[in-house]
Amino acid sequence: MSKCLVFGHQNPDTDAIASSYGWAYLERTAWGRDAEAVALGIPNEETAFALNYFGVEAPRVVESAKAEGVFHVILTDHNEFQQSIADIREVEVAAVIDHHRVANFETANPLYMRLEPVGSASSIVYRASKEAGVTLPREVAGLLLSGLISDTLLLKSPTTHESDAQVAKELAELAGVNLEEYGLELLKAGTNLASKSAEELIDIDAKTFPLNGNSVRVAQVNTVDIAEVLERKADIEAAMTASSVANGYSDFVLMITDILNSNSEILALGSNMDKVEAAFNFKLKNNHAFLAGAVSRKKQVVPQLTESFNA
Amino acid sequence: MSKCLVFGHQNPDTDAIASSYGWAYLERTAWGRDAEAVALGIPNEETAFALNYFGVEAPRVVESAKAEGVFHVILTDHNEFQQSIADIREVEVAAVIDHHRVANFETANPLYMRLEPVGSASSIVYRASKEAGVTLPREVAGLLLSGLISDTLLLKSPTTHESDAQVAKELAELAGVNLEEYGLELLKAGTNLASKSAEELIDIDAKTFPLNGNSVRVAQVNTVDIAEVLERKADIEAAMTASSVANGYSDFVLMITDILNSNSEILALGSNMDKVEAAFNFKLKNNHAFLAGAVSRKKQVVPQLTESFNA
Repeated sequence: MSKCLVFGHQNPDTDAIASSYGWAYLERTAWGRDAEAVALGIPNEETAFALNYFGVEAPRVVESAKAEGVFHVILTDHNEFQQSIADIREVEVAAVIDHHRVANFETANPLYMRLEPVGSASSIVYRASKEAGVTLPREVAGLLLSGLISDTLLLKSPTTHESDAQVAKELAELAGVNLEEYGLELLKAGTNLASKSAEELIDIDAKTFPLNGNSVRVAQVNTVDIAEVLERKADIEAAMTASSVANGYSDFVLMITDILNSNSEILALGSNMDKVEAAFNFKLKNNHAFLAGAVSRKKQVVPQLTESFNA
Repeated sequence: MSKCLVFGHQNPDTDAIASSYGWAYLERTAWGRDAEAVALGIPNEETAFALNYFGVEAPRVVESAKAEGVFHVILTDHNEFQQSIADIREVEVAAVIDHHRVANFETANPLYMRLEPVGSASSIVYRASKEAGVTLPREVAGLLLSGLISDTLLLKSPTTHESDAQVAKELAELAGVNLEEYGLELLKAGTNLASKSAEELIDIDAKTFPLNGNSVRVAQVNTVDIAEVLERKADIEAAMTASSVANGYSDFVLMITDILNSNSEILALGSNMDKVEAAFNFKLKNNHAFLAGAVSRKKQVVPQLTESFNA
């Protein structure tokens, strides 16, 4: 097979960057294939912390596979085409390593596809490295550990799989870090919201979901101090409204997640607030409400919104 | 998880039956889950030979998962919903074990999905059993071997993966059979076409493909004597025409595959014979033509038809 690009989703988070970096390493080391990890966007601050900590350069950003002269791609941490590279339908997907639901994905030919309902795509890459008998170097293990910590909020999210704790332990050993200490440092690096404009803040980690004819934007930011974020509420609301108008979102739901206490404040604006309230069985006051114990968009917010919008 | 049904595609072939039987065995034995292998149709003669040889009862036929009180299903040897159980969209797909392209498939939640571009779904089930440290009993190994032999025409089809020869060797040892001898016996059991009406013959292994607005039926039968099948040409053509009228197929393409010499005769009828001829760069005479070296619908017929119909 000719050269292959390996990448995570658009607007990459730490698991997207780490899993693609780790899988490309396996392609080269375990299977002798010509593979390069690239990214569909620049690293966020949390990811930049991890890359810097383990001395890894950020993967270069690409926008088209064909412009790179590449006809085979490997997707990590995503499968839906609208989250992938712009010309995804014009190239061959050779493999997918992911832990999300499957949708908007199809191929013309058989492929290698490995999806497991675990806490991170990085967990799967690590398991594959063990199966292949590859001992990961410190920096690869460190990045994969960072992907797992980031996606599971240090193993506290309900998306955490029972196998993930052992994966984290083994990766921390290979990376030579203390899991709890490094984990909190990493997560805190992603909570530096003060340096971000309101427009940037609502776009750090945001996905659009088509719900029963509506276009619902669900964004999430991590913090160690919800109150500090709410002090900027007026600015953030203005940015949410402007983004909805510009992009045709019917509703904009922002999760402000307290990574220390594992709760979220929901800030929501749009034309279906009755459905948002019904989804979480709460009343919005001044456009916001507290959601105890909620830290996972994938498990604790999107399914509830989906059900409520379809009711 | 509550009880789970494991099944292959509609109109099951040996790999569909074998892979579902083997995977259900792994679910129970390796992971202690409540899983039952069932089927979406009765076994064909080749599969019946394998079941009988290894003393396994045919899986019972089911038509609805919900009617069985089941809400979780595992698909083997297929993923496209139109090839699956009738109420597939109303139940949760917990896992997929397959070696086909991905299309018409989506889930609401993360799942276990293991696709490899290898010769049979049975090959993947065997690899998973080794990873899980399970030594397969003779009858399970024998069925998986049968699935692999059937799908690869005894490792001769271009769909055969470089890893499949070793898989076949190990399964033959576990099953206590001679690979070549058992393989030919199995394949010949599927070539008993004399007992079948023309209507049955064209439906033994048939799939419909939507090609550029046309509905193209591509069927395949295995034989050790192409001439013998062509003696029934008039009857078979009448059955193909009647089936096209009844089901709205624009074209009906039948591969008559010589399993001993690895060639096929193509018998084709319909409104796009120019496209069929262009696909294989041959001229049909009396509706048929020889296709040297062609044994795989998946690799040597459907992609060529797809390209020609889209040209």
